[in-house]
Amino acid sequence: MIKKVLLGVVCGAAVLTVGILIGHFGITKSGPSAPYWVNDVAKDVDESLIKTFLSEVDNVKIGENLKELTKVPHMATTAGDEQTVQFMLKRWQDPNSGLDEAWREEYMVYLSFPDPQKPNKVTVVNPSNTVLHTVREKEKNYTSDQLDPEVVQPYAAYSPAGQPKGKLVYANQGTAKDYEHLSQKVNLTGTIAITRYGGAGRAAKAINAAPYGVIGVLVYTDPLDINDGYMSDDNETYPHSWYLPPSGVERGSFNTHYGDMLTPYLAAKEHTYRIPPENVTGIPPIPIQPIGFEDANVLICELGGEAAPAEWRGAFNCPYNYGGPGFKPTSDFNNSDVKLEIYNYEEVRRSSNVMGVIRGSVEPDRYVLYGNHRDSWVHGAIDPSSGTSVMLELTRVLGQMVKQGKWRPRRSIIFGSWGAEEFGLIGSAEYAEQYIAKLSERAVAYINVDIAVFANATLRASGMPSVQNVIFTAAKQVSAPGLESTSVYDNWMKYSSKDSPTYGRIPRMGYLTGAGSDYAAFVHYLGIASMDISYTYDRNKTKARIYPAYHTAYDTYDYASTYIDPGFLSHQAVARTAGNVLIRLADSLLLPFNCSDYAEVLEEYVNTAVDLYEDRLKTHNISMEPIKQAVDKFNRAATHMDQVIQKLDRTKETPLKVRMINDQLMLLDRAFLDPLAFPDKYAFRHIIWASSSAGKSTFPGLADAFVKAESSGDWDRVHYHLSVLSQGIDGAAHTLMDVI
Amino acid sequence: MIKKVLLGVVCGAAVLTVGILIGHFGITKSGPSAPYWVNDVAKDVDESLIKTFLSEVDNVKIGENLKELTKVPHMATTAGDEQTVQFMLKRWQDPNSGLDEAWREEYMVYLSFPDPQKPNKVTVVNPSNTVLHTVREKEKNYTSDQLDPEVVQPYAAYSPAGQPKGKLVYANQGTAKDYEHLSQKVNLTGTIAITRYGGAGRAAKAINAAPYGVIGVLVYTDPLDINDGYMSDDNETYPHSWYLPPSGVERGSFNTHYGDMLTPYLAAKEHTYRIPPENVTGIPPIPIQPIGFEDANVLICELGGEAAPAEWRGAFNCPYNYGGPGFKPTSDFNNSDVKLEIYNYEEVRRSSNVMGVIRGSVEPDRYVLYGNHRDSWVHGAIDPSSGTSVMLELTRVLGQMVKQGKWRPRRSIIFGSWGAEEFGLIGSAEYAEQYIAKLSERAVAYINVDIAVFANATLRASGMPSVQNVIFTAAKQVSAPGLESTSVYDNWMKYSSKDSPTYGRIPRMGYLTGAGSDYAAFVHYLGIASMDISYTYDRNKTKARIYPAYHTAYDTYDYASTYIDPGFLSHQAVARTAGNVLIRLADSLLLPFNCSDYAEVLEEYVNTAVDLYEDRLKTHNISMEPIKQAVDKFNRAATHMDQVIQKLDRTKETPLKVRMINDQLMLLDRAFLDPLAFPDKYAFRHIIWASSSAGKSTFPGLADAFVKAESSGDWDRVHYHLSVLSQGIDGAAHTLMDVI
Repeated sequence: MIKKVLLGVVCGAAVLTVGILIGHFGITKSGPSAPYWVNDVAKDVDESLIKTFLSEVDNVKIGENLKELTKVPHMATTAGDEQTVQFMLKRWQDPNSGLDEAWREEYMVYLSFPDPQKPNKVTVVNPSNTVLHTVREKEKNYTSDQLDPEVVQPYAAYSPAGQPKGKLVYANQGTAKDYEHLSQKVNLTGTIAITRYGGAGRAAKAINAAPYGVIGVLVYTDPLDINDGYMSDDNETYPHSWYLPPSGVERGSFNTHYGDMLTPYLAAKEHTYRIPPENVTGIPPIPIQPIGFEDANVLICELGGEAAPAEWRGAFNCPYNYGGPGFKPTSDFNNSDVKLEIYNYEEVRRSSNVMGVIRGSVEPDRYVLYGNHRDSWVHGAIDPSSGTSVMLELTRVLGQMVKQGKWRPRRSIIFGSWGAEEFGLIGSAEYAEQYIAKLSERAVAYINVDIAVFANATLRASGMPSVQNVIFTAAKQVSAPGLESTSVYDNWMKYSSKDSPTYGRIPRMGYLTGAGSDYAAFVHYLGIASMDISYTYDRNKTKARIYPAYHTAYDTYDYASTYIDPGFLSHQAVARTAGNVLIRLADSLLLPFNCSDYAEVLEEYVNTAVDLYEDRLKTHNISMEPIKQAVDKFNRAATHMDQVIQKLDRTKETPLKVRMINDQLMLLDRAFLDPLAFPDKYAFRHIIWASSSAGKSTFPGLADAFVKAESSGDWDRVHYHLSVLSQGIDGAAHTLMDVI
Repeated sequence: MIKKVLLGVVCGAAVLTVGILIGHFGITKSGPSAPYWVNDVAKDVDESLIKTFLSEVDNVKIGENLKELTKVPHMATTAGDEQTVQFMLKRWQDPNSGLDEAWREEYMVYLSFPDPQKPNKVTVVNPSNTVLHTVREKEKNYTSDQLDPEVVQPYAAYSPAGQPKGKLVYANQGTAKDYEHLSQKVNLTGTIAITRYGGAGRAAKAINAAPYGVIGVLVYTDPLDINDGYMSDDNETYPHSWYLPPSGVERGSFNTHYGDMLTPYLAAKEHTYRIPPENVTGIPPIPIQPIGFEDANVLICELGGEAAPAEWRGAFNCPYNYGGPGFKPTSDFNNSDVKLEIYNYEEVRRSSNVMGVIRGSVEPDRYVLYGNHRDSWVHGAIDPSSGTSVMLELTRVLGQMVKQGKWRPRRSIIFGSWGAEEFGLIGSAEYAEQYIAKLSERAVAYINVDIAVFANATLRASGMPSVQNVIFTAAKQVSAPGLESTSVYDNWMKYSSKDSPTYGRIPRMGYLTGAGSDYAAFVHYLGIASMDISYTYDRNKTKARIYPAYHTAYDTYDYASTYIDPGFLSHQAVARTAGNVLIRLADSLLLPFNCSDYAEVLEEYVNTAVDLYEDRLKTHNISMEPIKQAVDKFNRAATHMDQVIQKLDRTKETPLKVRMINDQLMLLDRAFLDPLAFPDKYAFRHIIWASSSAGKSTFPGLADAFVKAESSGDWDRVHYHLSVLSQGIDGAAHTLMDVI
């Protein structure tokens, strides 16, 4: 009986256990289970996906892109430009490797062109009007690329038309100081000044000249500045090397501000109000024309007058005389004038941005922007098509992952192929003006890759200090071109590095303080964390201002593939690095921005400012305590933010807490904007990174005001900028502090 | 045997079932269950909590608050003001009914005061310097409140000091048109002008006068404008009624802009850069002094010259002559001058905002702001203490719920007790300037209750059209004072209503187009959805410009409790309505903003603009198509947004989707900001609601530019404003459209 009972109990227990197991595991619980989106919202960046991305970026395909993009010259709004528009659209709308959507956005923008019917002329004419010398009108042909009828004659965009004639003088780089110095030597009234590129903005060379009575300006590229002194096309210059042939001429936009000139702060749409062209400021008041050093050599070495100081001299084998004014008595040009015949005209033309998007899955209302301009001066193999080739390879790899259902970024990615950059960053600036509200609300970051490869030695990156970290992370995961075992990061460190109080030796990041490329509107007008990435020179090997074919008819596929980046491995390294950054910005649960790195720079800036200015300011009863306190507060807030991020349990935290932190990080740079701080600098609103002419590594408004005050005595303006900075930095600190 | 087997099977089945049940319900599943925060993030507003709130708002306690707040005069930065600071802090820091935190924020602000040692004087003096009449220096005492030594002498803040003496003229309301008219009748050089309140801003009465050679201005309140004609203090005016006694004088700030005058766009901290006082604009260039109608009657009725037109006349029993200039030959004052002796001085003083906060639980980084100024001119029972009493009752009820653990809002609530409003909305403007970054990023809405009760007839509410809906919802849930069965909403409809194309008959909301109270910085500088709520007049019963004791020594507890709101039931209704709105803004899962209501107003505005301007603009080749298209786009975007919100499954949607929509709603008004659109209007950036002098119900910049163009021919400015509007409205539409 006991046995039976025991057996019954054991059986019963067994059955019960089976029941329990079935009940627990066999039946789905109907209680509160996790909603479908709980895992999505907590998803972080996927390192294996990044590896796949890196492995798929193909140097050969980049080369193919470049070949296609550079078949013909594609200056803004020309037929060649339209061809590239179509090409971008075709690629971005490709059903297998395109983006979710791609479209074109048009603006009616104010451009300037030479007249193909009446080419600009520069001649030396003697008193009886005989032409003694004519400056070459087009660059010499070497590879037949130069013969394309669409190669635009070298000219200075926005130079007024006009036919000034006068005695030639040499004005070095055409800085304000240069003209001042020259005017003490020579009476400049009615003269034509020849200047070399560098030292001052293009337009400045004419703007600085006019007050002295100069009536026309020439500008050329001295072989010392661009060719490490090499001058002969027999065997020294392209196609024998990367150096500029003697007839090469740097074209360019001769303006001071950026964006469409007729529609300040408004997108240049058809019916948009336009200011009268005569109200445009920052462009040459007198005709100016760029010429090759072949002709400059002839003109400069015939000049009379006193010899210029050593630092004014370039590579020509002569003393760079100031000019008598005019040529020396022993010259064939004695008593002759230089005559400019400039027929440039301005026109409102239809320019296109090509836009493409990959929609975000979790936070579609957060945008990571990536952009590059599309228009060139001539074939533009390096500027900008190296960048466009890289962008197209990026979008091919990412687009494929999206189309195959393997990936969709957490945040939305917007790609911009900007138009009319060469005329003054116009496409990107109009885009920023049109969408200021949306971009201010939602843009997390902007990545700019314009010229992807200046040269193939090392990575170069500039940006807000907060993005340093993500660039470093990305650069460590990419092999340096041709150096399998060295990372782009380690290679970079060899070429340019600095000591950080936090990290020790690290690669040196630059800052985006000017308007050198399309990042300008994103940094200065919109306050979006931005960066500019490229491969660049070994400065031990060349002193060239920039790659020598820049803005000339020699910037071709042949030039790029032969001398700049054979095999396109540097292009590939840039694509991998920038793409890695892009994926991290788009996919990271927490934005990979480091506020302490920002604090470190503000700390450096304030220390420099105190060293430079505090004693003098005390004598004017202006205290620097508020700015010191503001930077201190920013520092504490940044450290605190670091801790909050470190302590965060990423897997368990509420998505709104994560979003709150991301919003703080996203909006940090917005807090530095002040639309009234720089009334003379168009669309410069960022009080930390605005351009400055003071040449000090510190706050730009303060530095410039200080320089001015030293001569004008306007110490109020210095005090004003200190207050703007104190309030702005304090406001930025508040953005990082606990929200309430 | 079969029995046994059957029994065994049945038993076994039973045990198995028990086992299954235990297994399923008895053991917690370790699989993916909902994280702790899933319910929190989806929580919506709790209607039962709102009922509790409404029932707890206590009219008696509001009356007690008012009594305490009005014990002594509390003009900005005086000892009385400091007493109210302490009182606010004590209440907000109360452990049982206070807020999470409360603190004081100080600014050093530029104020203007009469000299207590040398009171301002206005006299009639004859040619031999005999004083024939002296204007009363202080208001007559009726209730002993007027005897308080801290009652400030009536004066015009920011009037310069000076002792002008001249023949008197009558200039009606002192508008530009009034002076122009008068100057055609009388030579105004060297005259003193007497004007009545109304028609023009306070400062304008002096600013408009100076160009005609007027050297001093008097301003008074005509009994026709404030007292429905009643004038006698024997039995007609306070303390016999709510009407202004003959000696009552409206004080005020005589300035045009708002915020601290010396620190434009910068918070007025100790070391902040200050502009030189002589650079301040918008204040009287000549001395001006307010006086009572008792004295104005004497002066005006003795004037010589021609009789003024009927519309210039007030309630005095005389023809309101222009002045000879000066008095009539038959007057005792014949040949006499009026002399002003003004000793006002300006001083930078320390003014406090008192701030308090209830931290949000789910979205602490979203702020709902509620504010009211604290400073008065004298006892300020109505202005502003009616509002402060209401705010304190709100914070008591809400604070108690928080302290008892019964409630914590989804979003954070920030309360502001602003200082120095009477001098030009200074406390709130400095706050907005200091925290522009944080507030722009995070503020969902601002509720302003300044004067809570002007009179006890009906609710009055103004604001962005998007907040109409939540105010209506709240007003429907509150009983009208003294009318148990009528809601505040229904009662409102009886007094002021309009036809809406969408809703039919609805109460009429106003717009916040000026800078009448502390909402100005939130609307115009920061672009935050704002509203202003109060109880007000039955316009069938009075034509008074404003409640008659406004800014006088009669605005006391006795006056308020006897004539404005006996029993404080209207105060209670305002507290309930505004509090209900506040809770809904803080607690709603989706912000209760209605974009279609905004679209309706833009539609009205554009239709009005087209009616008024299109034909004329066509003749200047200016198209209105872009603005029509922008409003159309806004309309479609708003409708789409409505649908997105309607379709949303609130219980299941991801918190980031909800947040995305809320961000779109929050940032809608930010998209209408343009810091450059109104260079002459300090801190006016909202292109829809900026102030306008054109008097048209349409876009302010456009309307003003059109008026100007009609005389100046500057049609470019009109075109510019059309472009600003088109781009701004288009940008706002994009904010509401799908994010990508």
